[in-house]
Amino acid sequence: MKPIVSIIMGSTSDLPVMEKAAKVLNDFKIPFEINALSAHRTPEAVEKFAKSALDNGIKVIIAGAGMAAHLPGVIAAMTPIPVIGVPINASLDGMDALLAIAQMPPGIPVATVAINGAMNAGILASQIIASGDTELQTRVIEFKEGLKEKIVKANKELATVSYEFKTN
Amino acid sequence: MKPIVSIIMGSTSDLPVMEKAAKVLNDFKIPFEINALSAHRTPEAVEKFAKSALDNGIKVIIAGAGMAAHLPGVIAAMTPIPVIGVPINASLDGMDALLAIAQMPPGIPVATVAINGAMNAGILASQIIASGDTELQTRVIEFKEGLKEKIVKANKELATVSYEFKTN
Amino acid sequence: MKPIVSIIMGSTSDLPVMEKAAKVLNDFKIPFEINALSAHRTPEAVEKFAKSALDNGIKVIIAGAGMAAHLPGVIAAMTPIPVIGVPINASLDGMDALLAIAQMPPGIPVATVAINGAMNAGILASQIIASGDTELQTRVIEFKEGLKEKIVKANKELATVSYEFKTN
Amino acid sequence: MKPIVSIIMGSTSDLPVMEKAAKVLNDFKIPFEINALSAHRTPEAVEKFAKSALDNGIKVIIAGAGMAAHLPGVIAAMTPIPVIGVPINASLDGMDALLAIAQMPPGIPVATVAINGAMNAGILASQIIASGDTELQTRVIEFKEGLKEKIVKANKELATVSYEFKTN
Amino acid sequence: MKPIVSIIMGSTSDLPVMEKAAKVLNDFKIPFEINALSAHRTPEAVEKFAKSALDNGIKVIIAGAGMAAHLPGVIAAMTPIPVIGVPINASLDGMDALLAIAQMPPGIPVATVAINGAMNAGILASQIIASGDTELQTRVIEFKEGLKEKIVKANKELATVSYEFKTN
Amino acid sequence: MKPIVSIIMGSTSDLPVMEKAAKVLNDFKIPFEINALSAHRTPEAVEKFAKSALDNGIKVIIAGAGMAAHLPGVIAAMTPIPVIGVPINASLDGMDALLAIAQMPPGIPVATVAINGAMNAGILASQIIASGDTELQTRVIEFKEGLKEKIVKANKELATVSYEFKTN
Amino acid sequence: MKPIVSIIMGSTSDLPVMEKAAKVLNDFKIPFEINALSAHRTPEAVEKFAKSALDNGIKVIIAGAGMAAHLPGVIAAMTPIPVIGVPINASLDGMDALLAIAQMPPGIPVATVAINGAMNAGILASQIIASGDTELQTRVIEFKEGLKEKIVKANKELATVSYEFKTN
Amino acid sequence: MKPIVSIIMGSTSDLPVMEKAAKVLNDFKIPFEINALSAHRTPEAVEKFAKSALDNGIKVIIAGAGMAAHLPGVIAAMTPIPVIGVPINASLDGMDALLAIAQMPPGIPVATVAINGAMNAGILASQIIASGDTELQTRVIEFKEGLKEKIVKANKELATVSYEFKTN
Repeated sequence: MKPIVSIIMGSTSDLPVMEKAAKVLNDFKIPFEINALSAHRTPEAVEKFAKSALDNGIKVIIAGAGMAAHLPGVIAAMTPIPVIGVPINASLDGMDALLAIAQMPPGIPVATVAINGAMNAGILASQIIASGDTELQTRVIEFKEGLKEKIVKANKELATVSYEFKTN
Repeated sequence: MKPIVSIIMGSTSDLPVMEKAAKVLNDFKIPFEINALSAHRTPEAVEKFAKSALDNGIKVIIAGAGMAAHLPGVIAAMTPIPVIGVPINASLDGMDALLAIAQMPPGIPVATVAINGAMNAGILASQIIASGDTELQTRVIEFKEGLKEKIVKANKELATVSYEFKTN
Repeated sequence: MKPIVSIIMGSTSDLPVMEKAAKVLNDFKIPFEINALSAHRTPEAVEKFAKSALDNGIKVIIAGAGMAAHLPGVIAAMTPIPVIGVPINASLDGMDALLAIAQMPPGIPVATVAINGAMNAGILASQIIASGDTELQTRVIEFKEGLKEKIVKANKELATVSYEFKTN
Repeated sequence: MKPIVSIIMGSTSDLPVMEKAAKVLNDFKIPFEINALSAHRTPEAVEKFAKSALDNGIKVIIAGAGMAAHLPGVIAAMTPIPVIGVPINASLDGMDALLAIAQMPPGIPVATVAINGAMNAGILASQIIASGDTELQTRVIEFKEGLKEKIVKANKELATVSYEFKTN
Repeated sequence: MKPIVSIIMGSTSDLPVMEKAAKVLNDFKIPFEINALSAHRTPEAVEKFAKSALDNGIKVIIAGAGMAAHLPGVIAAMTPIPVIGVPINASLDGMDALLAIAQMPPGIPVATVAINGAMNAGILASQIIASGDTELQTRVIEFKEGLKEKIVKANKELATVSYEFKTN
Repeated sequence: MKPIVSIIMGSTSDLPVMEKAAKVLNDFKIPFEINALSAHRTPEAVEKFAKSALDNGIKVIIAGAGMAAHLPGVIAAMTPIPVIGVPINASLDGMDALLAIAQMPPGIPVATVAINGAMNAGILASQIIASGDTELQTRVIEFKEGLKEKIVKANKELATVSYEFKTN
Repeated sequence: MKPIVSIIMGSTSDLPVMEKAAKVLNDFKIPFEINALSAHRTPEAVEKFAKSALDNGIKVIIAGAGMAAHLPGVIAAMTPIPVIGVPINASLDGMDALLAIAQMPPGIPVATVAINGAMNAGILASQIIASGDTELQTRVIEFKEGLKEKIVKANKELATVSYEFKTN
Repeated sequence: MKPIVSIIMGSTSDLPVMEKAAKVLNDFKIPFEINALSAHRTPEAVEKFAKSALDNGIKVIIAGAGMAAHLPGVIAAMTPIPVIGVPINASLDGMDALLAIAQMPPGIPVATVAINGAMNAGILASQIIASGDTELQTRVIEFKEGLKEKIVKANKELATVSYEFKTN
C-alpha cells in the first residue's frame, strides 16, 4: 500500500495538532505517511521530499508549521502537488503562522485552513482525492451527513436545560 | 406558551456562554426556546428554522457562534426578524468571530454584541420586544435601575480598603 | 408626523456615512429625525435626549461615532430603547470605533453593525420596528427580496466577460 | 464543453480581483463558469448551486467574498467538492475576510488563499484538477518553471542599477 | 484632610489593578478617595461626581475601565480637571480598553497609561500635583531615584548566574 | 516671558501634526517653546533638555514621535515633569507608536493621547497647568463650553438635509 | 573588487524600497551586489546562492520580501552568514511580512528591521562589517554623528514657526 | 578573558527568557557578560554602558525588553556596535515589544529577533562574531548541521504513531 497523502510537520511538538489530520485520513481509508521535516533545519530534506513527491505517487501534501511558518510555502514552491497548510499556534495565538502561510505571493498557492485546523486539512485532502474516486466521494458525502449527528446530540442536551419560561 | 425569542447555538460547548441570554429572558419572563443548529453542519435545518421563524411567532433571534462565525449572518439572510449575534471566543480571543459577525455586507444586518456577551444579547432582545409591551418596558427600566446596586455594593467594599491617606 | 427613529451623530463629518441610514428609513416610510450630539462635547444634551426619547415616542436610536466611540454606549446607558451603534472609520480603519461600541460591558448592550455600516443600521431599525407593524414587515420582506436583483444584474455583467474556456 | 471549475463572487465589484482566477484557468485551458451568487442576498440560489455542482461535473469551486465573508464557507457546507476561498479586501485591509474564510470550524474546510489572491486560487484549482490529468500536470509544471522568467527579467533590470561600489 | 486625587473604578473586580494607584498615592502622602462609579450603570452619579470634583478640591482624577472603556472619557467630558485613564484587561488582552480610552476625539483628552498600568497612573497623578508643591516634587525625584535600586538588586542576582564563558 | 510648556518633536515632518498643540497653547496664552530632539539621533541633547527642564521652569512636556516612538518615554525617564506623548502615524496606522508610547513599564508613566492627537495634548497640558492658575482654569472651562458650538453648527447643517419622512 | 554584502529581493517592484540599502553601502564604500531571487519561484537559485555565499566572500546578506515573506528565513537556513530581513509592505501595511520574517523558530535567526526599513538594513550591515575594520568603524561613528544635523536643520525650521506665546 | 558579547536585560524577571542567549554563547565558547540596565530606570547607566562598550571590546550587544521596549533602541542610538533586540512577552502577547523594537526610525537599526527569541539572539551574535573567526565559523556551521538531529529524532517518534492506513 503506497501513501497518496503526506503529512509533514516540523517537530513532534506539532503532533498533538497534526494527528487530527492523520485520524481523518485513516477514517477515510486513505493511505498516508507522516514525516518530520523543517524548512529551516533540514532544507535539503524538504527539497528532496518535495521534488520526488509527485513521482512517489503523493497526491496531496499537508504541512503544519508555527511562528514564521515557511514549511508549506517552501514545499509548494517545489512541487505541482496541492499543498494544504496548517498554521499552528506557537505564538501570537497563531496569527503569525496564519499570515505566513496564507499570504503567499502570486504563483505559489498554499491551501490554508484554520489555526490548528489539522482535522479540516485531512478532510480537504480527502475531498481533493475524492474527485477521481467515486467510492471515496461517497464516504466524504456520508461524513458530511454525519456532522449533523453532533447537532442532534447537542439538541438533546439543550432539552435538559430547564427554565420556567423556556418552551422547549 | 409559545416562544417569542429563539436562542441558537452551534454546539453544546457554546452553552456556558449562551445560557446567560436564557437567564436574562427567563428573568424578564419572556418565553423562549433554545436549539442547536449549525450553518455548516445542518444548513437545511438552519434554512427551515429561519424561514419559518416569523410564522412561528418568533420576534427576535439570538445566535451565538465562534471562529468564522457564519450562523447569525446566514440566519439573518433568510428572515426579516432582527438577529442578534454573539461572537464566541473559540480562537484568537474571539476577534475572528467578532469580525465574522459584525462586518456584514450592506443589506443584511446582524445586531452584534460583545465577545461572549450573551447576557447583553438577552437584554437587547428584551429591549426590542419591550417596544410594544408596556409591562415589559417597565421591567427593562427597573432592570437598568437595578444595575446601580452593583455599584452601591462595590462602594461598600471599597470603603473597607484602608490607607493612611485614603480619605473615604 | 412624529419621528420613531432618531439618528444621532457627533459631527457633520459623519453625515456622508450616516445619511445611508436616513435613506433606508425614508425608503421604508419610517418617520425619523437627525441630530448632532456628542458624548464628549455636549454630555448634557445627550442626557436630555436619551432620557426623553422614550416619552417622545422614539422606538429605535441609531448612533454613529468614530475613534473612542462612546456615543452609542452613553445613550444606551440612559434609555431602555434599543440603540444601534455605527462604528465610523476615523482612524485605525475603524477598528477602534468597532471595539469601543461592540465591547460594551454586561448590562448595557449596543446593537453594533459593521464599520461605516449605516445602511445596515437603517435596515436593522426597520426590522425592529416591523415587529409590531404588519405593513412594514411586508416592506422589509420585499426589500430583502429586492437584494437579489443586484445579483441578477451582476450575472448579466459577468456574462459579458469572455474567455475561450469560459462556458457561460 | 462543460465547466469543471466554477468561479463565484458576490457582486461585480469583486470582478477586478476575481478575473485573475479566470485568466489562469483560461491559460490552463480548463473550462470554467463565472457566476454571481450571494450567501446573504440569494441564499436559495447558493444552495441550489452548491447542491447540484457535483452532479453538474464541477470539480473545484472558487468563491471570493469580502467583509464577513460567508460565501465560501456556506458553499463548502453543502457540497463535497473542494472550495477555494478568496478573501477580498473591502474593509480592514481584508483581515476580516481572511478570518471569516480561513477560521472555519472542524468539519467544513475552505482552502484559503491570500487576500485578493485570486490568481493563486486559479493555480490551486488547476493543481487539484491536474491530479488526474497528466497533460494538465505537465502544463502546471511548465507554469511553475515559467515563474523563473520574471526573476531573470528582474536581474536584467537590477544590472542597470549602477553605484560605484556595486560589483554586478 | 480633603482628598485631592480621586480614584474611580467601575466595579470591585477592578480593585486588584486599581489599588496599585492607591498605594502610590499613599506612599507619596497625597490624600485621595476611592469610589466605584459606572459610565453605563450610574451615569447620573458619574455626572454629579465629575461636575462637583473641581469645587471639591480634586486636582487629578484616575479612572480605570475595561472593554469598551467609556468611564475616563465620559468624566473628562464634564470637568476641566486632568483625567488619567487606566485601560483594564477584561478582554482582548486589554486592547479594546486601550483604544476606547486613548483614541479620544479632539477636544477631550484622557491621559492614557499602559494596560493595567494603575501604578503609573498614581505616579503620573503625583507628578501633576507636584508641579505646585516643592516638597512633593522632591519626593517624586527621590522615587525616580529609587527605581534604580531594583536594577542594583537585579545585577546582584545576575552575578549568581554562572557559565564557563560568562565573565562577570 | 519664559516658556512653561515644551513641545518636542523628532523631525519637521512631525510639524503638521504637532503644531496643533502649539495652536492650543497659544490660544490659552500659555508661553511655550518648540524644539526638535531625537531619542535616537541626539540622545545627549535629549538628556540635557530633560534634566534641565525642571530648573528651566517647564511644567509640562509634550513629545511627539512615530514608529518605535521612544522619545516621550526616554524624556519621562529623566525628569519628574509630566510628559504627554503624541503617537504619530508614520507606519501601521500609528499603532506601533501608540503601543511604544502607552505601554510604558511600571515607574515611568507617559500621558498618552490619541494617534496624531496633538490638539488634545495641548489641551491636556493646559488642564494640568490650570490646576494652580484660576484664570487659566476659567479659560479651560470656557474652551470646553465652546466645544458645544460645533454641535450647534452641525445641527444647523443637518436641518438642511431633507427627506420626505425626516421630521426635523 | 569582490562584494562582501549581497542584497537580494524577489522582484523589481521591491527595488524602490531596497535601493536605500544599496545607497547606504555605497556611501560607506562597502562593495556589494544586488540580485533578484525568489524563495518560491527560484528555490534552486536561492539554494545555490546561499550555499556558496560564504565561499564567495559575502559577510552579510540583506534580503527583502513582502507578504508571506520567506526569502530571508530560507536563505538563513542555508548559510552561517548573518541575514538581515527587510519586511516589505505589499499587503496588510506590511504586518504579514514583519511577522513572517521576525518570528523565526529557534535555531535560525533573521536580523529583522522595520517595515520598508532598507536604509537601516544597510546601516546594520555596515555596523556588522565594521567590527573587524577600524576605518569603516570610524565612518559608521561619523555617520551616526551626522544624523544630528537633520535635527539642527529641523530646529532652524521650527524657529520660523511663529506664535505670540511661542518663546523661541 | 574579556567579554565580547554583552547581554542586557531590564529586570531579573526577564532572566528565564534571556538566559537562552547566554547558554548559546557559552556553548559557542564566546566570552560574554550579563547585566541589568533599564532605559527608563537607569538612563545614565545605559548611556555609560553604551558609550564605553566599543572601547571595552564588546562586539555585539543583546538587549531584551518588554512592553514599550526602548532599551535596545536607546543603546543602539549611542554605539556603533550592532545591537540585537529581543522582544519579551510581558503584555499583548509581546506584540507591543516587537513593534517598539523592530520599527526603529531610519538611522538607528536594531536587529530584531522573534518574541522571546533569546536563543536566536545568541546564535545571531555568534554568526556576526564568526565573520572574522574561522574556528567559530566552523562551530556555527556544525551547530546548524546539528539542528537536523532534532528532526531525525522527531521522525523516530513519528514512526511509532500507528494507524491502519499509515504506511510508514
